[in-house]
Amino acid sequence: MSKAIFYHAGCPVCVSAENGLAHSLDPSKYDVESVHLGEQSGRIAEAEQAGVKSVPAIVMDGQTFHINFGASIEDLK
Amino acid sequence: MSKAIFYHAGCPVCVSAENGLAHSLDPSKYDVESVHLGEQSGRIAEAEQAGVKSVPAIVMDGQTFHINFGASIEDLK
Repeated sequence: MSKAIFYHAGCPVCVSAENGLAHSLDPSKYDVESVHLGEQSGRIAEAEQAGVKSVPAIVMDGQTFHINFGASIEDLK
Repeated sequence: MSKAIFYHAGCPVCVSAENGLAHSLDPSKYDVESVHLGEQSGRIAEAEQAGVKSVPAIVMDGQTFHINFGASIEDLK
């Protein structure tokens, strides 16, 4: 089981990506954690270190995938 | 079973997204078709109609998710 972390900011684009894509990952392979960076700003540094430039984004197996564009991570600081 | 169509152009960003994300969708829910728009230019119109502006992108359940940025669809014409 791999961990996938979905970073978002509660925006409409984020909600679509979470419901449409993050929750559609194979549950036998991925344990998906959803992190609201607006509410958990202590985790912004971790997201940036993984290469997250904007939300929504998902980090899985060492890769970072930005999904459409909701907000820049700079605007969440 | 829903159909998910992954549009790409064979670029490195596309390959990462296909292997990392498109192939990680729940196989009990999604039948994933991969379409190389560079080789199947007859399907560019269909992709544009679904709202695809760049590749890689995945269209599923009526929603279009652009994943990172490989190439603009304009550049594939």
